[in-house]
Amino acid sequence: MKNLDSQSASEIVLFGALGDLSRRKLLPALYQLDLAGLLHPQSRIVGVARTDMDIKEFNDFVETNLNEFVSEGLESEVLDRFLSRLVYQQLDFSDSAAFKNLAQTLKQGHKTRIYYFSTPPAIYGAICDGLNQAKLITGNDRVVMEKPIGDSLESSKVINDQVSRFFKENQIYRIDHYLGKETVLNLLVLRFANSLFTSNWDRNSIDHVQITVAESVGIEGRWGFYDEAGQMRDMVQNHLLQILSLMAMEPPADLSADSIRDEKLKVLKALRPINHLNIKEKTVRGQYTDGYLNGVPVPGYLAEEGANEKSSTETFVAIKAEIDNWRWSGVPFYLRTGKRMPAKHSEIVVHFKEQPHNIFKDSYSDLPANKLTIRLQPDEGVELQMMNKIPGIASQLKIHENKLDLSFSQTYSDERVIDAYERLMLEIINGNQSLFVRRDEVEQAWAWADGIIEAWESTQEKPKPYAAGSWGPVSSISLIARDDRQWVE
Amino acid sequence: MKNLDSQSASEIVLFGALGDLSRRKLLPALYQLDLAGLLHPQSRIVGVARTDMDIKEFNDFVETNLNEFVSEGLESEVLDRFLSRLVYQQLDFSDSAAFKNLAQTLKQGHKTRIYYFSTPPAIYGAICDGLNQAKLITGNDRVVMEKPIGDSLESSKVINDQVSRFFKENQIYRIDHYLGKETVLNLLVLRFANSLFTSNWDRNSIDHVQITVAESVGIEGRWGFYDEAGQMRDMVQNHLLQILSLMAMEPPADLSADSIRDEKLKVLKALRPINHLNIKEKTVRGQYTDGYLNGVPVPGYLAEEGANEKSSTETFVAIKAEIDNWRWSGVPFYLRTGKRMPAKHSEIVVHFKEQPHNIFKDSYSDLPANKLTIRLQPDEGVELQMMNKIPGIASQLKIHENKLDLSFSQTYSDERVIDAYERLMLEIINGNQSLFVRRDEVEQAWAWADGIIEAWESTQEKPKPYAAGSWGPVSSISLIARDDRQWVE
Repeated sequence: MKNLDSQSASEIVLFGALGDLSRRKLLPALYQLDLAGLLHPQSRIVGVARTDMDIKEFNDFVETNLNEFVSEGLESEVLDRFLSRLVYQQLDFSDSAAFKNLAQTLKQGHKTRIYYFSTPPAIYGAICDGLNQAKLITGNDRVVMEKPIGDSLESSKVINDQVSRFFKENQIYRIDHYLGKETVLNLLVLRFANSLFTSNWDRNSIDHVQITVAESVGIEGRWGFYDEAGQMRDMVQNHLLQILSLMAMEPPADLSADSIRDEKLKVLKALRPINHLNIKEKTVRGQYTDGYLNGVPVPGYLAEEGANEKSSTETFVAIKAEIDNWRWSGVPFYLRTGKRMPAKHSEIVVHFKEQPHNIFKDSYSDLPANKLTIRLQPDEGVELQMMNKIPGIASQLKIHENKLDLSFSQTYSDERVIDAYERLMLEIINGNQSLFVRRDEVEQAWAWADGIIEAWESTQEKPKPYAAGSWGPVSSISLIARDDRQWVE
Repeated sequence: MKNLDSQSASEIVLFGALGDLSRRKLLPALYQLDLAGLLHPQSRIVGVARTDMDIKEFNDFVETNLNEFVSEGLESEVLDRFLSRLVYQQLDFSDSAAFKNLAQTLKQGHKTRIYYFSTPPAIYGAICDGLNQAKLITGNDRVVMEKPIGDSLESSKVINDQVSRFFKENQIYRIDHYLGKETVLNLLVLRFANSLFTSNWDRNSIDHVQITVAESVGIEGRWGFYDEAGQMRDMVQNHLLQILSLMAMEPPADLSADSIRDEKLKVLKALRPINHLNIKEKTVRGQYTDGYLNGVPVPGYLAEEGANEKSSTETFVAIKAEIDNWRWSGVPFYLRTGKRMPAKHSEIVVHFKEQPHNIFKDSYSDLPANKLTIRLQPDEGVELQMMNKIPGIASQLKIHENKLDLSFSQTYSDERVIDAYERLMLEIINGNQSLFVRRDEVEQAWAWADGIIEAWESTQEKPKPYAAGSWGPVSSISLIARDDRQWVE
């Protein structure tokens, strides 16, 4: 066992233990932590769900899912240890009296209890009530909340209020799994451990930033849920704004949770509001129509199963975001996210300024600017695009744009890619909130997003159509082309 | 044939064609150009030397040496073509009347004549006289001068005057073969085609620069010659100052010869003079004593064959050079060069400034600064040292210093390494003086070097001893340690 000096044993209580997130992400992440020696020997994992099953059945359920979702295969010794940590508790979350059964299960003292709410947010309040009635909440316990936290500033306040009646902010871990990605963590190191970037990370050196989160999937049978939300609430308000705030924040004085989150919050506060006055100039909404993905025909959004043909929910958003502060004045952050795009493809591209003058125009008439690309999906990585001379003898100097691998994926190729949930689960167990979203961040992000959503509603314009399998409506290209720039291909 | 559009046929006249430089460098370089299709079909190579031999013997001489010094082996078709270009002319350089024989050999008209002086500089004047008497100089001809051009400002003027009586500055190509190295050319591209470097190339971002040219050899049987010169004249005045001026120059407005050389000259002019007032603080002289190189005992400088035991000639120099201009004020350039060092090792290391504040001190207490390393010998290459996160799950963020290959030697690993003389010979043939040293540069470099040499003479101090196989006298470590810095290991 290593790195456990400061870790006390935990009771990790998974509400919704039989659900998709638990099966695919949470249980495999906990297994990986156990494998890495990062779970305290006395830590237990308490599955909680509505279904009645005994521990044998839960063990089978867990083993089956680990076999399916731990791609490297299981080590039998670790699996045995992991299964021996499991406890199962049937519970109807809405029946607060029933929480006494959970209390019975958790009666072993002196462990940090981690309540992981892997359930719809609508029942967070009920769970908190139940825990409270069963006297299962102390100042040491932690609660983990999955997105979405509301669908507006107002509704997010309701959910946060329900939880904060019982838990203080320093006990609450709001997940945005993008913050657990290796390359996002490496971004902090790149930005703040390398003077070459630190001293170039502002309006003097950077021309603009592009953040793309493209999905090739459609709405995956969740039409009803998705149609209520749309891409703005589902992706921009959380993931894209979190990425933006990490990219744009001032250097924090230290890595403590509040130092980092204070700086992120300042970025969100400095976002220039978008409202009915500038909505057409700064945003594009799209909705996919019939099209082809990898040559296979796919239906449009309004033809998906369960669709209301009159829906004007957007499945694509492009935004020119501007940050009104000293560092970023005049440097747009172009955000773009959509469903049914040609590929699953998420990346941040920092476009440094072009050279003011090209002395190599005989060799390269249009010298490209340096670019830093932070790929989040499908394969994580960081690349720096630079120009260099092609070796060789020739009358003409030959110059080439090359990619430098800053994540050293070759150097570390024997390292397994760590899933975001492993990182985040470890941070929760260790009680470090740096990679979790503070309430004021959530609310500030909603305030900005609400402004855009309200402006769209006020215009009553339909979203622009785009063929499934394309990069979104033509208007999205125009949005950035008006500034004489273009999306990275 | 490619890239020959603007090239006219040349008569490449090698004075000293049987000498070491010609055998090892010039003839192999010309062969490589022929192989690459960069020699005009009608171009000829005219060997000139004192020895009486016929063309058959000269062909044999050339073939033997190509076999020895073209490491990839010869292609017979190219060899045949190359040998068919050869002409040999016996000539006593001091007999100006004899140059009429050379005129006879060169009587074919309409070719650009390139006179390559691969002889001691003492006879440059005599060769010029002879060429002039035989009416072998027109405004289209070119002359190539090898170093050393004098041993002081005064003596360099004498040599330059002798040549400039017959050739204009735009006909004169002064070789410093360091300027033909691939990585030196790539340095121009890195500096001026990448805004990340362009905007970081000054006192705001760079802490200091180290330039090391270390040789493991001793004086290789040239004691008499070397003892007259010493390391300052032999290496610093030319190679190290040329590298320094390319590193430090302002961006030229274009790549034309005079744009580049004007900027280099400005750097040389801005070098802070070193004289008897600051000589002890800014310089260290050393002379090697007995020692071991790779475990083998080697004699000290004063015990070498032919040595005068009282010589106080330096075989090692370290200098803290300062450039008094807007860009470099407060940024020292530490120069270091010596014989009988542990390895043949030449590199430029740009030390960027340290981060002003370390937020990763739990992981890495002393965050190293970014460094750009430009290796000239033994293997050319460019590397950028940066910090990044080591992938993996662990409670502690793990940070590591990594090297990025900016010369993409892996990408281009199938490219042959181009010798500096191939590049320079091609530039001469194409009539491009950018990579050659202008007279005012030579003189400015001598003026600065003379100041140091005179100050050393005035102190009458002996050079500091250092054991052969070491990195020079302890004083050299102190020179940089006084500034709280250290030589790169």
